[in-house]
Amino acid sequence: MKATVHVKLKRDVLDPQGKAIQRACAALGYDAVRDIRQDKLFEVELDAHDETAARALLDELCQKLLANPVIEDYRVVAVEA
Amino acid sequence: MKATVHVKLKRDVLDPQGKAIQRACAALGYDAVRDIRQDKLFEVELDAHDETAARALLDELCQKLLANPVIEDYRVVAVEA
Repeated sequence: MKATVHVKLKRDVLDPQGKAIQRACAALGYDAVRDIRQDKLFEVELDAHDETAARALLDELCQKLLANPVIEDYRVVAVEA
Repeated sequence: MKATVHVKLKRDVLDPQGKAIQRACAALGYDAVRDIRQDKLFEVELDAHDETAARALLDELCQKLLANPVIEDYRVVAVEA
C-alpha cells in the first residue's frame, strides 16, 4: 500500500527555515509573498491487510519516528492499495 | 491567498534521507515498511489578483527558489482565497 503523510510544525512554533525562504523571496523582488512555511511530506510504501491496519501502523510510526509531537502535527492524508 | 506546493525528488534520484528513515523503521521492528521518501511541503501566503496570477507566481518561485528542477519535480496542489 502507498500512503502520504504530512508533518507540519505547529502554528505557534517558529519556522526559521520558512522565514529565510520568505526573505530570499523578498530579496529576489517577490514582495507579494507574505509568508512561507516549509513542512515535511512522506511517501510510505508498506505492507498491510487493509486501510485501517495501514493507518494504525502509520499513526504509530508518526508518533515514534516521523514527527516530534511536541512541536509538530501529523496527518495521514491518503492511503491507497 | 494561500497555496500549497509539493516539491519531490525525481523518482530516479536517490533519497538517502528516506533510506535512513526506512532503516530506522526496520531497526524498530517495523518490517512492514518497504520504502519511505521524504519530500518538501510548502505553505505559501501571497498577494495575487486571482488564482491564475497566483499559480504563475508560484511557478516562477518554484523554478527559481523552492525547487531544483534538475533533481526535483514540483506541483502546486492547491490555491485558495
